[in-house]
Amino acid sequence: MNLVVQKFGGTSVADPDRMRAVADHIARTRRQGANVAVVVSAMGKETDDLLHLASQVSKTRPGREMDMLITAGERKSVALLCMALADLGVAAASFTGSQAGIITDTAHQNAKILEVRADRLRQALDEGKVPVVGGAQGVSTDRDVTFLGRGGSDTTAVALAAALKADACEIYTDVSGVFTADPRIVPNARKLLHLSFEEMLEISATGGRVLALRSVEFARNHDVPLHVRSSFTWELGTMVDKEDLSMEQAIISAVTDDASEAKVTVAALPDRPGIAARLFRAMADQSVNVDMIVQNVSHDGTTDISFTVPMEDLDTSIEVARVLGPEIGGGEVSADRDIARVSLVGAGMKTHPGVAATMFETLAREGVNIEMISTSSIRISCIVREAQLETAVRSLHEAFKLEG
Amino acid sequence: MNLVVQKFGGTSVADPDRMRAVADHIARTRRQGANVAVVVSAMGKETDDLLHLASQVSKTRPGREMDMLITAGERKSVALLCMALADLGVAAASFTGSQAGIITDTAHQNAKILEVRADRLRQALDEGKVPVVGGAQGVSTDRDVTFLGRGGSDTTAVALAAALKADACEIYTDVSGVFTADPRIVPNARKLLHLSFEEMLEISATGGRVLALRSVEFARNHDVPLHVRSSFTWELGTMVDKEDLSMEQAIISAVTDDASEAKVTVAALPDRPGIAARLFRAMADQSVNVDMIVQNVSHDGTTDISFTVPMEDLDTSIEVARVLGPEIGGGEVSADRDIARVSLVGAGMKTHPGVAATMFETLAREGVNIEMISTSSIRISCIVREAQLETAVRSLHEAFKLEG
Repeated sequence: MNLVVQKFGGTSVADPDRMRAVADHIARTRRQGANVAVVVSAMGKETDDLLHLASQVSKTRPGREMDMLITAGERKSVALLCMALADLGVAAASFTGSQAGIITDTAHQNAKILEVRADRLRQALDEGKVPVVGGAQGVSTDRDVTFLGRGGSDTTAVALAAALKADACEIYTDVSGVFTADPRIVPNARKLLHLSFEEMLEISATGGRVLALRSVEFARNHDVPLHVRSSFTWELGTMVDKEDLSMEQAIISAVTDDASEAKVTVAALPDRPGIAARLFRAMADQSVNVDMIVQNVSHDGTTDISFTVPMEDLDTSIEVARVLGPEIGGGEVSADRDIARVSLVGAGMKTHPGVAATMFETLAREGVNIEMISTSSIRISCIVREAQLETAVRSLHEAFKLEG
Repeated sequence: MNLVVQKFGGTSVADPDRMRAVADHIARTRRQGANVAVVVSAMGKETDDLLHLASQVSKTRPGREMDMLITAGERKSVALLCMALADLGVAAASFTGSQAGIITDTAHQNAKILEVRADRLRQALDEGKVPVVGGAQGVSTDRDVTFLGRGGSDTTAVALAAALKADACEIYTDVSGVFTADPRIVPNARKLLHLSFEEMLEISATGGRVLALRSVEFARNHDVPLHVRSSFTWELGTMVDKEDLSMEQAIISAVTDDASEAKVTVAALPDRPGIAARLFRAMADQSVNVDMIVQNVSHDGTTDISFTVPMEDLDTSIEVARVLGPEIGGGEVSADRDIARVSLVGAGMKTHPGVAATMFETLAREGVNIEMISTSSIRISCIVREAQLETAVRSLHEAFKLEG
């Protein structure tokens, strides 16, 4: 008998009606002859509400306690979903991350899964039950409750699919799949029916909000095919799996956008070995998540280094740079919040020269200035003014003929 | 070093301000040189909100899932309280019932504590931390999350005090102790400074809303002295412990009232052995919680049996009586929702004859008709019309000179 892992995000279970609709779908999947294991997120905005409550009570908010607090949200969801399933005559049993055997490291608020001891889930499945597991949570090697971080429910689903050797892992969300661009910016964006893990990784890393990056990495590493689809229309969505080399690949799959980062520039650093290493080691030590890094060519023995960081890491990164700067002989530190990144992603890009040139020409024609460039074998990203982001996305989507 | 278990009810932690006030008090207790272990209920009306949510999602509401849902409330409280303590520099660690080693039977929604494996709590205390435990929850012998029922947090506190051999168990609530009568009915009711376990049991069983009956039984069985006090004024409250026989005992300690029950009468039952047994076995089989039972003297070989049940069990008990009645030769089944119970409780009553007579005379003088009577060695209860309950309570409080 087939086994399907189905993951439902917060909007999919935002209220009692949605909760029952999800239960209906699970029951339907069972009637079609598949076993189902379910992962569910906290209802709607519950996680945000819990974070707000914590900020009203405490300034220090220790990680261990934040994890205990936040995981209460998924606890409610799993229990309610099992009740809705019971109403439909579907035997189900809820499990916290701990009960589901999701063992993590001790990094509270952002724990990593070390192992899945899925005996209880296997037993529930053997008994003909639907196990319903709280997303984004586990138990640490110190026996404390841990939270995998925002978007961690996708990772839970993929980890369970791998541990249970599921035939499919369906990620249900409030959009019907992965699109060639954000449909709010490009109304005629097209739903992508198929993506490779590598393309999906680049899309998630550069602003695609549908799948959390970590879950895609996990799926690639454990070869778990993903199906991203809508819990509102239930139509077929986007399949993400191993690249099929026999297939003609689209040169460009998607244009992504991301306005959530800021740019930091450290000017006039001595151009000699080890300077960049010291700067970015210091950033890493403070848990600053540096994304793009660009170092300009040397002038008069000095060089400027610019890098992007998530907005929430900006203050820390400026402080680190200002403290370390004089030590390593650097000059002024400046920050720019009004930047954004536009990226082109496509597995076929590596065998088609000229993509970068077309991208830069298109942006130039629209009067969009490029401030930083970074590339991988299947992606090109440009940092532009945030105000010009939508123009950039639309013009690239059109230039590469991505519309339906 | 002394160890104090402090339990805080829902109103004590109803909002961020109250939560911080509780943390302050715990920090103060520590500064005074005591170790503290804490039990906390869900915030304010959270448990009711969760019950309402469940009723919106599901008709069946399986017990296992209800317990998973409801215990989310205490999970939030423990985490938030630990955060508030961290702000004050007090090292604390939250524990679910399961993490605290509270092992229960598998009776979901109303689980009984079988054992407390308090190693993790002892370890936290040894490390100088304040363990903060979610009230009314545990883990069953089947490894499922269980809920001890409403008022179960008091029981958790007493169980932990017994397991940790605490020097004191303080139950903080929104009133400043146990009173000679409900102050909302009798404005000059007096706070009782000391009660025996037996008196407290009778008070809890007959309408005293301050301590859950189960927790008092547990405290008596394990000889855990209780201190019931206010988390708003922090003044000294009511001590409950083993009866001190050397002390002059008050004849009457308190007048209690309870309008939460209804009366069922099965008329004209054959007056022969085994009839009452069959009736109340049938009630027990349907989990009807029968309280007072009165059987009248026989007329013409038949007798009437009246009993009281909690309002929520009334429909079931009528059904059971109507189905069983013909089988055991009984007549009409009638129900009366408009009754109430007024009780006198006092350890000294057993050595002072005439208390019952004074009680009945007082009620007669006020025109309050007595419909049923039941007594224990330290309590007398009368069923009266609900509309006359307050008159009954006030007149008895005055007749026995209980005011301050």
